[in-house]
Amino acid sequence: MNYDTFLNEAILEAEKGLDEGGIPIGSVLVHNGKIVGRGHNRRIQKGSAILHGEMDALENSGRQTANFYKECEIYTTLSPCSMCTGAILLYGIPKVIIGENSTFLGEEELLKSKGVEVVVLDNDTCKTMMNDFIKAQPKLWNEDIGE
Amino acid sequence: MNYDTFLNEAILEAEKGLDEGGIPIGSVLVHNGKIVGRGHNRRIQKGSAILHGEMDALENSGRQTANFYKECEIYTTLSPCSMCTGAILLYGIPKVIIGENSTFLGEEELLKSKGVEVVVLDNDTCKTMMNDFIKAQPKLWNEDIGE
Repeated sequence: MNYDTFLNEAILEAEKGLDEGGIPIGSVLVHNGKIVGRGHNRRIQKGSAILHGEMDALENSGRQTANFYKECEIYTTLSPCSMCTGAILLYGIPKVIIGENSTFLGEEELLKSKGVEVVVLDNDTCKTMMNDFIKAQPKLWNEDIGE
Repeated sequence: MNYDTFLNEAILEAEKGLDEGGIPIGSVLVHNGKIVGRGHNRRIQKGSAILHGEMDALENSGRQTANFYKECEIYTTLSPCSMCTGAILLYGIPKVIIGENSTFLGEEELLKSKGVEVVVLDNDTCKTMMNDFIKAQPKLWNEDIGE
């Protein structure tokens, strides 16, 4: 299993968000080795309070059954916040692959406590993207994480 | 403080959802005694995996600062699932008023453990709506809660 292939797709989504003037966080939902949904944070682009990267990827995957999600993994460039964590738990996605958790540490412990496998890749591209964004747009970033 | 006034608005949202052929769960976000966002479950109407009632109300409230949410209460006809709970925690909404939790018990303990005030009204209209829906559409209901 090569995590980088799918993480790179999540990074492409994050970069797309940045190009749109948005917050550079991207995500892909993978079902049995195939991307079934991709998305990125659209707070700024859509004036959205709920479209974080993972939420956007889930939304773009459409309506699915519980059994479908149990065969999925979700990739995200950044450690998932409590909302995205809750969505992952709601749908019983068994594995989360995270680009980095050094700029923001989400609810990884809650995921693990519910039996979700959490892999943190400590990816430099993800870290640089977020560090640069937080430095450039601290107010926007705080809004996105409710701080 | 009369909870019924705002719960009734959440019930109106749930009924609107039912009229649209959707899942009858509604929510309103209240800021300093005034409704600033209202919504209902739109899984069926929009083919959405993320628009639960509370998420729709938050989305329709637009982008807000952390300070704004700290002055809010959220009303929902049904006990909030892990996704909606996560969104409430992300934004630091300090109080959740729940129509009923007998047809579905969400993450109320998690909310309380994080200091959120949780009020359950045990409302008969909410219970009847959900009981009737679950009986009529068990597959749709299971899809909505990832079961």
